[in-house]
Amino acid sequence: MGDLAEELGFSKSAIYHHVPGKTHLLALALDEALDELTAVIREAQDESGGSAYERLRAVVRESVRVLVAHQPAVTLLLRVRGNSEVELAALQRRRWIDARLAELVRAAAAEGAVRGDVPPELVSRLLFGMVNSLVEWYRPGGEVSADELSDAITAIAFDGLAAPPA
Amino acid sequence: MGDLAEELGFSKSAIYHHVPGKTHLLALALDEALDELTAVIREAQDESGGSAYERLRAVVRESVRVLVAHQPAVTLLLRVRGNSEVELAALQRRRWIDARLAELVRAAAAEGAVRGDVPPELVSRLLFGMVNSLVEWYRPGGEVSADELSDAITAIAFDGLAAPPA
Repeated sequence: MGDLAEELGFSKSAIYHHVPGKTHLLALALDEALDELTAVIREAQDESGGSAYERLRAVVRESVRVLVAHQPAVTLLLRVRGNSEVELAALQRRRWIDARLAELVRAAAAEGAVRGDVPPELVSRLLFGMVNSLVEWYRPGGEVSADELSDAITAIAFDGLAAPPA
Repeated sequence: MGDLAEELGFSKSAIYHHVPGKTHLLALALDEALDELTAVIREAQDESGGSAYERLRAVVRESVRVLVAHQPAVTLLLRVRGNSEVELAALQRRRWIDARLAELVRAAAAEGAVRGDVPPELVSRLLFGMVNSLVEWYRPGGEVSADELSDAITAIAFDGLAAPPA
């Protein structure tokens, strides 16, 4: 909390006036990430948004947007291992999101739009493994813009790295 | 070191007889992962192994094999942040590997075999972001075999998630 106070240019007591402590601060950050990602899922559950395949592509694109816009909060979320009540509650919300993503992949596979030779749960893990990996190296303001990143991830994930047939 | 001794059923002094301390143990684990991954890269640099595209596909497949077979060592490697001399040395070797991977992607793009609308460095980061993500959830002996995982990652990465045209 001392580091945070220094970073923000506030006194420690000013910070404790707003947040009761580190645990509360962690909960706020995790909720920030989880609320955004939950909103992306809710949107994708609305079937007026197109086929399951179209909604899955949109979820990937929107998830990249959330990760870029809320990178510190999402980075914390991805590192949570369940070592406290706050972390366990966050893991429970994260599992709900993961389960909805797997459902959406299954629905897209049932439409015949997603390759059938890879189990949907595995697709979901690998797809979001690729999306989530960006918190390890993406730096805002660097050479790659958020839009370029969204385009690249969506293109690679759905259409593959191989050059399209000429 | 106490936990390790208990886990292995050795006395602490028996362990210290073989390794001078924690730092040395970390160095051994990081070298295990780095030696395996370096061997994969060396193999891919041998142009008798086919086109750059074929060698890139082989690197992805072989990397998955190394990650599954050496998961604890690779997990440590991926968490290294450069907080000690041992970690800095490992980071340097990891950067060498990353640079060779990016070169291979560039060579495959120059052949016209990899899509040209995503920068090679970004392809490399996303491709190995997906591969590396498996250390977060893959459990040997679970529902997904190492071969199934290799096939799934290679298929999704190169051919895409979208169902092939009928």
